[in-house]
Amino acid sequence: MADGKSKLLYLDDVSVGQRFTSGTYHMDLKRMKEFAEEFDPQRFHLDDDAAQQSIFRGLAASGWHTAAVTMRLNVLGDLQFAGGLIGLGGEIEWPRPTRAGDTLRVESEILEITPSRSKPNQGIVRLRITTLNQRNEPVQVFTAKLLVPRRA
Amino acid sequence: MADGKSKLLYLDDVSVGQRFTSGTYHMDLKRMKEFAEEFDPQRFHLDDDAAQQSIFRGLAASGWHTAAVTMRLNVLGDLQFAGGLIGLGGEIEWPRPTRAGDTLRVESEILEITPSRSKPNQGIVRLRITTLNQRNEPVQVFTAKLLVPRRA
Repeated sequence: MADGKSKLLYLDDVSVGQRFTSGTYHMDLKRMKEFAEEFDPQRFHLDDDAAQQSIFRGLAASGWHTAAVTMRLNVLGDLQFAGGLIGLGGEIEWPRPTRAGDTLRVESEILEITPSRSKPNQGIVRLRITTLNQRNEPVQVFTAKLLVPRRA
Repeated sequence: MADGKSKLLYLDDVSVGQRFTSGTYHMDLKRMKEFAEEFDPQRFHLDDDAAQQSIFRGLAASGWHTAAVTMRLNVLGDLQFAGGLIGLGGEIEWPRPTRAGDTLRVESEILEITPSRSKPNQGIVRLRITTLNQRNEPVQVFTAKLLVPRRA
């Protein structure tokens, strides 16, 4: 990260199909329950027995915890746009639960690059950001729209 | 919440256009920076001066913090589906930043109700979940797909 500035990407630098990866993140049981207590206090995120009886058939992380961890992995990974990772929004889905003890990582691929018509100094990059567990199963797919500057 | 059980909603109980509200949540500066340090360590979420120079023109919460707070407001609000709030995914957008000191609340409206063809005991509710600040400006719009059980 120390010389990260030299690798900052502008809209002009990227191409459709380009891929990015991240490091890994260990989903800790205690932190998973704390996050759920603060932001998603539902029984299947907090209580083992209740979770076994639920649709998740076992304790599951809040989807928003998976989303937050995904952001961390991207910010610290090799997807380094000039101006930062500025998400306007996107489509998110959680095809399967994240479990305590999972090791998550992110793989991203550029789907579309759209220079702005009204603002010649920026554009939109559409990116599929897939969060995978240690069995390479997707736990989240976020198709994001990011605001990316052009080279001056 | 004590007698929440009596108000649990099944697919059969809700209709398109039905609306739900939440309590409020105060965005605390310290907690906002802590969340960003843990999950979205970018300068415009952490450092006032850097944030002033950024597209946000001032310190902004991570969008995922807004999303997590929105979940809390819904879980503790009057949107009480049987089986819990189980999101399969949806479209999320952040039309403007959340700031420290903001007071957030949620308004939700049912857009569509689709009984499952293959699983007669459940269906999908499509819901527009709008997170508003104290000026009634939307800071997040999440059009979610929730899994909701039918009455046995």
